[in-house]
Amino acid sequence: MTGRVAIVGLGPGSPEWMTPEASTVIAAASDVVGYGPYLDRLGLREDQRAHPSDNRQEMERARFALRLAAEGRAVAVVSGGDPGVFAMAAAVFEAIEEAPEWRRFDIRVAPGVTAMQAAAARLGAPLGHDFCAISLSDNLKPWAIVERRLRAAAEGDFVIALYNPASRARPTRVGDAFALLQGVKEPATPVAFARAVGRAGESLTLTTLGEADPSIVDMATLIVIGSSETRFIEGGARAWMLTPRAYGARR
Amino acid sequence: MTGRVAIVGLGPGSPEWMTPEASTVIAAASDVVGYGPYLDRLGLREDQRAHPSDNRQEMERARFALRLAAEGRAVAVVSGGDPGVFAMAAAVFEAIEEAPEWRRFDIRVAPGVTAMQAAAARLGAPLGHDFCAISLSDNLKPWAIVERRLRAAAEGDFVIALYNPASRARPTRVGDAFALLQGVKEPATPVAFARAVGRAGESLTLTTLGEADPSIVDMATLIVIGSSETRFIEGGARAWMLTPRAYGARR
Repeated sequence: MTGRVAIVGLGPGSPEWMTPEASTVIAAASDVVGYGPYLDRLGLREDQRAHPSDNRQEMERARFALRLAAEGRAVAVVSGGDPGVFAMAAAVFEAIEEAPEWRRFDIRVAPGVTAMQAAAARLGAPLGHDFCAISLSDNLKPWAIVERRLRAAAEGDFVIALYNPASRARPTRVGDAFALLQGVKEPATPVAFARAVGRAGESLTLTTLGEADPSIVDMATLIVIGSSETRFIEGGARAWMLTPRAYGARR
Repeated sequence: MTGRVAIVGLGPGSPEWMTPEASTVIAAASDVVGYGPYLDRLGLREDQRAHPSDNRQEMERARFALRLAAEGRAVAVVSGGDPGVFAMAAAVFEAIEEAPEWRRFDIRVAPGVTAMQAAAARLGAPLGHDFCAISLSDNLKPWAIVERRLRAAAEGDFVIALYNPASRARPTRVGDAFALLQGVKEPATPVAFARAVGRAGESLTLTTLGEADPSIVDMATLIVIGSSETRFIEGGARAWMLTPRAYGARR
């Protein structure tokens, strides 16, 4: 038994940010598996089968894709952003780990621009130095590990990108995260809420850790919290967010 | 005075990974500024001016680009990978911060796939959970902050991506970093050395923290060090590296 599965990142939404590899791999697929709204934007051909799913049930989607591949289909599993960053690549490899016969499959991962990078591009250069990416979802991990990582990220004075900050099931987690960080980082730390970058309804909100109102955050928001070096550059048509390449130069 | 500067990510090397936006922005530029080997691969037209530089002197390159823009040129500053991740975006915004007249310029950042994502795609799903990116370069920051961040990343049990691990000027830093991490993380922690992914001479080395030989690392290598959850999946044609979406499920 052999099979072919490509795990493909579509980027944050704008077709400008979808790599040529992603386009090529999707064009070569007989079957495309993914969240319905992502499939809708691909303009698949009539001879390609779309298999939409909702945005949860990642393991079921991964196993379904591998079973299709075992039937000889050329399968593309699509994710927004980068499939390797809080998206489908981990689920597919977890499914492969469960089933030794799937380990011999021809698996390809096509990387993509992830939300953190799209947000950073719009903001200026907030990730110009060392940074962390943390998902606030506690569906699959205890909240205690999120807290441990937020504290460690503050202790390391990393720039912090927060993914999956809020959902109807856990609306208070982003507030909990801000309360924790407000206890350990300076109130003047620059913060950005970058919503739906590259998609309809894009907006940027620049604020500080002391003044941030996390209640405005929704699941389409990527949050960037600065290090002690991060600052806003003002005085132009708009403000930019910068974490410089040097550390400690001002001390 | 006004001017236009685009700060453009070319991706890790393969044209498959360069976004349509990057291609469009470079095609629209009258002047392209960047490291010589990056310019060579762009196939610029005769009417476009290439301004190659060496890979250091980022600030001089940034100021030069802004001065060209002030003369009315349409300037693209190119970086490998993502310009926002250890690349040119921070240098350009630092130059903008220095000179208020440049703050009114029309600045655009075009994100790109960064080395960490290309490496992750080849490895499977090593960044499937929370992660940090740390540059081991101490040209612009004290080594003490690198050590502080490595310790914090270990304390937070993040997956760690290490950029700029070695150079002729500081060949021992990667060994110092491994010695530090070997003191605080399990010897069985999966480690990958991903060299020149998407370029000539691509190679992947899978090992463990206890057995890793950092002396094989060069400046073209991106290092991924797992969390306590990261593992290799073996038994197929090749091994994969997975950090699963769940945390603590095995405890």
